[in-house]
Amino acid sequence: MQTLEQTHQKFSQLKSLLSEIEDLYGAEAVLHWDQKTYMPAKGIEARGRQLATLNRIAYEKFTDGTIAQLLDDLTTYERDSPYDSDEASLIRLTRRNCDLASKVPTEFEVRFSLLRTECYQAWATARQENNFALVQPTLERMLDMSREYSSFFPEAQHIADPHITGSDYGMSAVSIREVFAELRAQLVPVVEAITSQPPVDNSCLHQHYPEAEQLAFCHNILKQMGYDLERGRQDKTLHPFMTKFSIDDVRITTRVYENDLIQGLFSTIHEMGHAFYELGNAPELEGTPLAGGVSSGVHESQSRLWENLIGRSRPFWQYFYPQLQAHFPSQLGAVSLETFYSAINRVDRSLIRTDADEITYNLHVMIRFDLELDLLEGKLTVKDLPAAWNDRYLSDLGVIPTSDSNGVLQDVHWYTGQIGGMFQGYTLGNLMSAQFFDAAVAAHPEIPDRIETGNFTVLHDWLQANIYLHGRKFTAAETIERVTGSTLGTKPLIDYVHRKYGSLYKL
Amino acid sequence: MQTLEQTHQKFSQLKSLLSEIEDLYGAEAVLHWDQKTYMPAKGIEARGRQLATLNRIAYEKFTDGTIAQLLDDLTTYERDSPYDSDEASLIRLTRRNCDLASKVPTEFEVRFSLLRTECYQAWATARQENNFALVQPTLERMLDMSREYSSFFPEAQHIADPHITGSDYGMSAVSIREVFAELRAQLVPVVEAITSQPPVDNSCLHQHYPEAEQLAFCHNILKQMGYDLERGRQDKTLHPFMTKFSIDDVRITTRVYENDLIQGLFSTIHEMGHAFYELGNAPELEGTPLAGGVSSGVHESQSRLWENLIGRSRPFWQYFYPQLQAHFPSQLGAVSLETFYSAINRVDRSLIRTDADEITYNLHVMIRFDLELDLLEGKLTVKDLPAAWNDRYLSDLGVIPTSDSNGVLQDVHWYTGQIGGMFQGYTLGNLMSAQFFDAAVAAHPEIPDRIETGNFTVLHDWLQANIYLHGRKFTAAETIERVTGSTLGTKPLIDYVHRKYGSLYKL
Repeated sequence: MQTLEQTHQKFSQLKSLLSEIEDLYGAEAVLHWDQKTYMPAKGIEARGRQLATLNRIAYEKFTDGTIAQLLDDLTTYERDSPYDSDEASLIRLTRRNCDLASKVPTEFEVRFSLLRTECYQAWATARQENNFALVQPTLERMLDMSREYSSFFPEAQHIADPHITGSDYGMSAVSIREVFAELRAQLVPVVEAITSQPPVDNSCLHQHYPEAEQLAFCHNILKQMGYDLERGRQDKTLHPFMTKFSIDDVRITTRVYENDLIQGLFSTIHEMGHAFYELGNAPELEGTPLAGGVSSGVHESQSRLWENLIGRSRPFWQYFYPQLQAHFPSQLGAVSLETFYSAINRVDRSLIRTDADEITYNLHVMIRFDLELDLLEGKLTVKDLPAAWNDRYLSDLGVIPTSDSNGVLQDVHWYTGQIGGMFQGYTLGNLMSAQFFDAAVAAHPEIPDRIETGNFTVLHDWLQANIYLHGRKFTAAETIERVTGSTLGTKPLIDYVHRKYGSLYKL
Repeated sequence: MQTLEQTHQKFSQLKSLLSEIEDLYGAEAVLHWDQKTYMPAKGIEARGRQLATLNRIAYEKFTDGTIAQLLDDLTTYERDSPYDSDEASLIRLTRRNCDLASKVPTEFEVRFSLLRTECYQAWATARQENNFALVQPTLERMLDMSREYSSFFPEAQHIADPHITGSDYGMSAVSIREVFAELRAQLVPVVEAITSQPPVDNSCLHQHYPEAEQLAFCHNILKQMGYDLERGRQDKTLHPFMTKFSIDDVRITTRVYENDLIQGLFSTIHEMGHAFYELGNAPELEGTPLAGGVSSGVHESQSRLWENLIGRSRPFWQYFYPQLQAHFPSQLGAVSLETFYSAINRVDRSLIRTDADEITYNLHVMIRFDLELDLLEGKLTVKDLPAAWNDRYLSDLGVIPTSDSNGVLQDVHWYTGQIGGMFQGYTLGNLMSAQFFDAAVAAHPEIPDRIETGNFTVLHDWLQANIYLHGRKFTAAETIERVTGSTLGTKPLIDYVHRKYGSLYKL
């Protein structure tokens, strides 16, 4: 029998080991950020080595048996602590991570890591040369290894489930397929109705907007929306991202195009949404794996909520548009709010996921999700992937890629991550964003009016109290249940789409 | 008996362990750099924790006994390999570092690290409040611990030697005192002769020089002098520094004052000199402790050589001054090269070391060196330090600090490092810079002419072949002997001062 003191000592030892590992992850994040922002070109080789060393040390510390033993010793303590307590949650999450690490052989991890680097390089060349065949053999090996990964989880109901679990714990291929089918059935007719109308004029967005002035305006938006610049910053990168070094240092990046106002503005708000989540964790979770976001889907729900439900809403621009006009008087002085609002919400049948509007975006994602499953299930070969991709684009979006580069090669995910579990989070996030926002407005019906006056704190504080604060204590399903009182559904997003686009396009 | 294969295997194991430790140091350097350049204010607490974790892991890996055992097993291999081979040098240096780590108890390191943080904070307050008394008790403890550190080296001839050895291995208090006495005896009359003349007009340097334009010009100088911007970059910080993440990522920082052209220009060239050293190491040394610079003094010899012997020389500005005039036409268009050259070489009796000209700079340094020794020897108490400081400024430089802040509190070194070994490297560096430069010009008499045409490669390549390439294979004494054929002396610097300032001031 352990005394209470011994138990507390073991729990404290667990926390201290986990904190050391979190410090290593934090250092890794700094090195990654530097690599993407300021690192001189030739620094890349040593940087790869340094990152690999940090990662290996963290992995060794996590898997050397000490943590597993402590978890064993803390079984009773976990059982006797409330489910939502910091203590039980930390033990539960660490046990889950530990089980996962114990199932995947180190030898596999090493081999897979090498393949990922190799496949990424082949992809970069193939994309540049616009020739899928150059990466096909490597991607075939990537598929083999993605299937091999699944084999370490013989209890999985579907071959994709181990991959989905990695980013969206608790979700499954079957349940997501069902939800996505429902969503697609609803969205496709909306897209058809919209795109049968003449396209909205969005030329106001495609004038010359100097980079420095765009960045200054984004900075201004960040400040007014409450992103604390003493706990974060924004830099430029090729691809925008959010990264966290600690609860008090959560950074975002953006990119701006001088002939397109959309990219900088909305990637800024999107990444800020991710940052709000991490900045809003309870400080007690700092230095433990409980700090962070529940899942890929729940994290995305926050970036998309702020980007789309707020950043692409009329109340938001009722407040910000006069500032934007004042900032770009020659470009927007004569453009009405309605014209601008329609332009930023223009719906298009397009080829590129990352440029898509908020409705068709989900069609792009669901194509990828289905193709991933087909590949893993063996219904589709890598060789036939480009043709399958193009077929689905034609049937779902009414467009055909003109080349591999704007088709099957456009996203890096499969080529550097794995095949499986890579895309569902984006659309799960969109679904949840609408569901969470409905719950927020039900609790605080004044939210839209507040947004219109530039007050974002009512919404932010509600999200913080209901989602951000809890870090990774709960699963995605538990989070949805706790926050909205129901399970994941398509209705909130569908209703939102009908409401907003019905009015915009007079459907 | 070990087989050759076993020996090679052990050597390779040693290299692999050391490479892992170097990766951790490289990561630490990135985190430090970020802290000084871009980190948001509130990131500081977690950053301190992350740095401490990385440092502790590196220390544990270095001292867990594995490396010590390998060194034992490699004794014969070291003896049988040529002294200047990579193999013997690596074993020799690692053994030296290992001996050092084994002499200083971990308990002391932890205690000292806490005191350093505490003393730094007390210093920051004391400096802001301009009141030495606020840091005096903490500095007394710093002196106690600096003496305690020396006690771990009972074989040392002088109490300061263990400290001096830390930064300038192979040098001793006695030998440095002797050289410094010689130098002081020569410099003091020069300074007296110069400062008895009316001061040179340097008002051309103190016009308004916009920050962005200064930074652009510094960038231009870096490029033309051969600093490879694919292997480094320059950012702004409060205090300029050079830092190395790997042989292909060696960065510098600078600060510029809009009413002073000196600071930005010469700190840029100074830090670039440090960077040249690290960038010029043989690639084979990468990932081992042999990468880097021999000692504090030899490193400083390179920053000072480029900053002073080149950057403050007439040939340098014969090449660059027309560019500078074109860059700042309204400020310098009507200022002659001679006026500018005299202004940047103006000698002053001043209070602040970092603002001092290249002659009096050494007087500042030697005051600090002597006071350190007096404190360690027990001839001077911390309480009496400010008065002793002021007395020496009056006797050596003819000026008296008007406050603690521009007196004894001006340098952070004693308050965050230790008392002892902190300053001698600056003047050792000046001495060596002249000695090395003489050797370079003896080998390549065309160097000054080449500088005048903007060609820096002859000098750079000679320094690389003779100094940079070898990293930390040799001691400072060995380096001087190998490069110049003689021991450290004062004559080259004295001759340089007489030659240059004799002409400038018609002495």
